[in-house]
Amino acid sequence: MKEPKKYKSALQEKEGVTPPEHTDQHAISKIQKKRRVQPSTDALIQGIFNGDMASLSRAITLIESQQIEHSKQANEIIRACLPKANASVRIGITGVPGVGKSTFIEAFGKHLTNGGKKVAVLAVDPSSSISKGSILGDKTRMEELVKDPNAFIRPSPSGNSLGGVARKTRETIILCEATGFDTILIETVGVGQSETAVHSMVDFFLLLKLAGAGDELQGIKRGIIEMADAIVINKADGENIKPAKLAKVEFNRALHLYPEKQSKWQPKVSLCSALHNEGIIEVWNMVEEFVKLTKKNGVFESHRHEQNKFWLIQTIEDRLKNDFFNRKDVKKEMQEQIQLIEAHKTTPFAAAEYLLGLN
Amino acid sequence: MKEPKKYKSALQEKEGVTPPEHTDQHAISKIQKKRRVQPSTDALIQGIFNGDMASLSRAITLIESQQIEHSKQANEIIRACLPKANASVRIGITGVPGVGKSTFIEAFGKHLTNGGKKVAVLAVDPSSSISKGSILGDKTRMEELVKDPNAFIRPSPSGNSLGGVARKTRETIILCEATGFDTILIETVGVGQSETAVHSMVDFFLLLKLAGAGDELQGIKRGIIEMADAIVINKADGENIKPAKLAKVEFNRALHLYPEKQSKWQPKVSLCSALHNEGIIEVWNMVEEFVKLTKKNGVFESHRHEQNKFWLIQTIEDRLKNDFFNRKDVKKEMQEQIQLIEAHKTTPFAAAEYLLGLN
Repeated sequence: MKEPKKYKSALQEKEGVTPPEHTDQHAISKIQKKRRVQPSTDALIQGIFNGDMASLSRAITLIESQQIEHSKQANEIIRACLPKANASVRIGITGVPGVGKSTFIEAFGKHLTNGGKKVAVLAVDPSSSISKGSILGDKTRMEELVKDPNAFIRPSPSGNSLGGVARKTRETIILCEATGFDTILIETVGVGQSETAVHSMVDFFLLLKLAGAGDELQGIKRGIIEMADAIVINKADGENIKPAKLAKVEFNRALHLYPEKQSKWQPKVSLCSALHNEGIIEVWNMVEEFVKLTKKNGVFESHRHEQNKFWLIQTIEDRLKNDFFNRKDVKKEMQEQIQLIEAHKTTPFAAAEYLLGLN
Repeated sequence: MKEPKKYKSALQEKEGVTPPEHTDQHAISKIQKKRRVQPSTDALIQGIFNGDMASLSRAITLIESQQIEHSKQANEIIRACLPKANASVRIGITGVPGVGKSTFIEAFGKHLTNGGKKVAVLAVDPSSSISKGSILGDKTRMEELVKDPNAFIRPSPSGNSLGGVARKTRETIILCEATGFDTILIETVGVGQSETAVHSMVDFFLLLKLAGAGDELQGIKRGIIEMADAIVINKADGENIKPAKLAKVEFNRALHLYPEKQSKWQPKVSLCSALHNEGIIEVWNMVEEFVKLTKKNGVFESHRHEQNKFWLIQTIEDRLKNDFFNRKDVKKEMQEQIQLIEAHKTTPFAAAEYLLGLN
């Protein structure tokens, strides 16, 4: 459990806060004082516009907070940031645990910052509130990126609903973009639902795979393959090179079975070894090619419009359902109606009418 | 356009109505008189309990009617039928156009009625209101079954929403079962959404495929394969036998890639030639084996319970959404909010809050 601590101190460093365990009593009270004096909303907005990562961090904390006062402040900041947002490329990165996501993001992120990019790394992991941050938890594999002044790393917001986590992440993207980050990487786990959420907030969706793990066909979540703009076979080094090349052929064939994407982009398969920093440039070239194509044919912009509409509708539908099914009377009568259905005394449709008619 | 007419008259025949085109003036006025005098709700219920297909037909017409008075009558009949329903095996049959669904149902249905079964054939085709019954339209391929006194065939109810069509079909199943039909076949087209609906109302889901049509892998809707309890490769005759056998191997492999079903049933692949009446018995044996297994392990019953809950929740959710999004004020303000989002003046989440707050 040493790594999360290390990561925390790295974050605190960025926020200008010295870790308490390394300080004397005087320093601690200084920190406590600092913590009490919360910067104003305007100060945070200004900080964000000046590219200040400490302000960004604090504003994201407001987004993640459960307190109503914080939510209000967060909404003000988001609204102010909106006109400065949107000028980035948003890339989703997924893959099963063990595929080397962190190592890939470290290598990929470093390649980008070396090229003058400003990179924000976020995560969507609805389970993280239970597992206490399985995603972006192991910062030892992002050692370089954590220290990089042109990179900002933020673990998944906690929350028990995917909708809530997704919303916080979408809002965080806006703040990151307003802070000047031009490349947003959003990491997620390979479990299905969270991929769909991430896919709905990125421009480019990248699936990391392994060769020779017997999962070329087996265990592939078809829906995820279908979403992918690129499949990158990681750990293609040493003895792995041959199976990786075979897997590439296999995946290329699989990708061609899907209907043409609206973007006219033909998803690609490439090999890389994040550990040895090989094949990383190729992945970025692919992203650039994609952005060029879709900005030219208008899909880049229209895709973002569709995503906005998707989140609008999704948020409304979730709330309508939550509000209804959490009503005390509905909860109580629902159980009774289900029993009547099972006793063949009513139909699901008649029961639905009855429940909808409750006042 | 000769077939639908022919089919219609076959139906009318069952309802005891002679087609008007073959009758003189006296007969026509007799029919008109018959039509004016609608049997009472009680008479229809009694008719259904006595196994009278004309009563069944009339009751289904009430389910399909848009008139409030008819809906009330229908609901009364359904409620009365509920205790007599549920004692059947419900089988969903899907496949792309041209796969031979009608021919298969004819052969399969005849095999069942010859064995003493009473077979009802229904359809779910939400597009049928536009295409005027592409499904179960071509009765020339069900010539025998249409005339069979132990078979009842009813085309898809019309409707512009899948939810509406599905509801009418679910209610029709109840009436068919109360009339004494012990095997319900529900046909649908291979287009995705309607499969999911049919899958949610049957015990056993059968996918018809062709071999050698280049669609062993290409064009397979993965989700549908995943739903299938059996894949039956039709037209496995003549020169088609070899490719059909190859396809069988291919599909068997594909089926093994999916996780074990809750029912513990391992989906099977079999060959048939509906036209030559070959391989039909094997399909029915498969269904019987499935029913035996799932009745023993309790999944048959629990699956139906889950389906009931699914339709209860689904119906409520659909209504909540419809009611909200069809509100005049919501419709109007929705457009404005979408424009504000595109102008980067609000977020989808803030817009959702705003719309939900309208009164």
